[in-house]
Amino acid sequence: MGQDIVRIEKDRLTAFCAKVFIDCGVPADKASCQAEVLVAADARGIPSHGVARLQRYVAGLESGQMLADAEPLVLRESSGSLLVDARGGLGAPVSVGAMASTIEKARNCGIAFATVRNSNHFGIAGYYAMMALKEDMIGLAMTNTAALGVPTFGRQVMFGTNPLAFAAPAGKEKAFVLDMATTVVTRGKIETYGRLGKNLPPGWAVDAKGATALQPGPLLEDMLRRAGGGIVPLGGESETHGGHKGYGLAVMVDILTGLLSGGGFGAEVKDTEISSARVSHCFAAMRIDLFQEPAAFKTEMDRLLGSLRNCPWAEDADRVYYAGLKEAEAEEEAVRKGVALEVGVFRTLEGIAKARGIEAPPAA
Amino acid sequence: MGQDIVRIEKDRLTAFCAKVFIDCGVPADKASCQAEVLVAADARGIPSHGVARLQRYVAGLESGQMLADAEPLVLRESSGSLLVDARGGLGAPVSVGAMASTIEKARNCGIAFATVRNSNHFGIAGYYAMMALKEDMIGLAMTNTAALGVPTFGRQVMFGTNPLAFAAPAGKEKAFVLDMATTVVTRGKIETYGRLGKNLPPGWAVDAKGATALQPGPLLEDMLRRAGGGIVPLGGESETHGGHKGYGLAVMVDILTGLLSGGGFGAEVKDTEISSARVSHCFAAMRIDLFQEPAAFKTEMDRLLGSLRNCPWAEDADRVYYAGLKEAEAEEEAVRKGVALEVGVFRTLEGIAKARGIEAPPAA
Repeated sequence: MGQDIVRIEKDRLTAFCAKVFIDCGVPADKASCQAEVLVAADARGIPSHGVARLQRYVAGLESGQMLADAEPLVLRESSGSLLVDARGGLGAPVSVGAMASTIEKARNCGIAFATVRNSNHFGIAGYYAMMALKEDMIGLAMTNTAALGVPTFGRQVMFGTNPLAFAAPAGKEKAFVLDMATTVVTRGKIETYGRLGKNLPPGWAVDAKGATALQPGPLLEDMLRRAGGGIVPLGGESETHGGHKGYGLAVMVDILTGLLSGGGFGAEVKDTEISSARVSHCFAAMRIDLFQEPAAFKTEMDRLLGSLRNCPWAEDADRVYYAGLKEAEAEEEAVRKGVALEVGVFRTLEGIAKARGIEAPPAA
Repeated sequence: MGQDIVRIEKDRLTAFCAKVFIDCGVPADKASCQAEVLVAADARGIPSHGVARLQRYVAGLESGQMLADAEPLVLRESSGSLLVDARGGLGAPVSVGAMASTIEKARNCGIAFATVRNSNHFGIAGYYAMMALKEDMIGLAMTNTAALGVPTFGRQVMFGTNPLAFAAPAGKEKAFVLDMATTVVTRGKIETYGRLGKNLPPGWAVDAKGATALQPGPLLEDMLRRAGGGIVPLGGESETHGGHKGYGLAVMVDILTGLLSGGGFGAEVKDTEISSARVSHCFAAMRIDLFQEPAAFKTEMDRLLGSLRNCPWAEDADRVYYAGLKEAEAEEEAVRKGVALEVGVFRTLEGIAKARGIEAPPAA
């Protein structure tokens, strides 16, 4: 890395993104919220969902795909549930609001579940699941996305990368935070291989005939035109390594988000040329003290997570992680040293800054 | 198949298994329940969890690993939650009871979640998730199992095959029922390859050094002695195809079952030589009408599932399925023609029958 990275102080990067959103007509509170979620992705070492997307957000706001000042509308509500229409607004503010309500409901009745439709890209699912941690709750967040994934034995995209995130608190250990696409990889990974001129590993994608796709260029073109081909589910392209399981997980996420919210689902969720698709989310929170004293639970979590960190490594491995550990360490480093951005991404931020007469954030 | 299969009328097979359980000291109601869950696995085309396990159940009951007449004890309860100690009893009766209570609680308060500890093998997770379907609810069931799975970059088993099941009702289509181990395969698959003298596909298991394991024999021996090696998570043995995601899912299931119930978890869950490990389960149910009118939801489910069934197939494929479709078709066939058992499995049933002076079920 070294030369290819620019570090920017986290608060300054967040403030810059917020100013850009405000300049696009987003109210200040929503702008801050969306900026914080974007920067959290970079801080946690998930740059595909970070400020590299700022230009797409700007384009979405300018095209009307993302509505700058849409006010979410609660369509149904009970003591433990919530259905929200995001009305085309930004993904992060409606999601932070929905998860906060979910947590508040869980505080009163133990378990709560919310769905949101007609929303936009909400960044990293883990951000919302993690909101439950400090409340001694287990948190869950999912979203559907534009269709990029091909069913086992299929050859046409029929579901999104449909990530799911699950967070459970620990004591001394970093929290367990699973945040995963249910496809084997996301489109960003395919694009990266394309830029590097590398062939794809077999087991990532299939072509328009449903056979193993190795060349990123033609695949991405076919996917864009919906001519066939796409990314395969977690588990690969056949049942041999469990591709049908990842396929099932992706459809499960679509059911819990798109269908349960009354939003779009399946192949009908499509990115436009300049921006992301309107998508649906779901959120859940559950109080740990329904089952165990939180302190005792967290002690046991430490025992579990410590045993995983310290289990014997494969002979050629450097370390064993658990979900969320790498990301928590990256976040600590980002807070200490500044958020690491690829130089190319930093240049796009400078471009946005210049075009809008906003001061670009200085390197740390 | 043909010659290698014996078909037995479903009710007769169930009655036979119940008689065997009663002969082992299990009260009649629990015996019927356990028999029904076992036979449901065979009927749905999942013989690894069916009556092929009857001998292990008998051995478990005789050894005291499974207690024939243990009465489950409710340890904590709220309007939407339940914590049960199975006290070493059979897995199916306590699980059917816990899921029934979960559904009843969800009927009143919308969403409910139960955990069960100190239980035994509960058969197919999907059975319990599917109990929610006729109530117009979404159902969820998970269990931890004896540790057979190796973390990404590890070389020692640290978690079970930890299946999760998710069921959502449809209208005219078969219900969506995902029921999957979070490891790439289960031990049964490795054993089958061993019996056939076949090498394992790369990406199923690692050996005691953490390298790709291809020979089932040495692997199974090492796993039995806990000498290292085991099955890898869904996604394979490295991060390239998302092995860390399956690893995360397996640990998520352990948290929601073992940790949340106060039961055993991780590497400490071990099969004995003759029987399965004491394990923990969780169950959830959620009313669809919290979010959508059930009839409208099921119409949309039909649209989703129909679009998956009818999507373009890969050139060398016969068909595209969705989770639960194959199993539902197998079940219809089993009801019509009798439950298909491998001849070898049927012979073990005849052996059990003879040893206990119970009439074996006749071939259909």
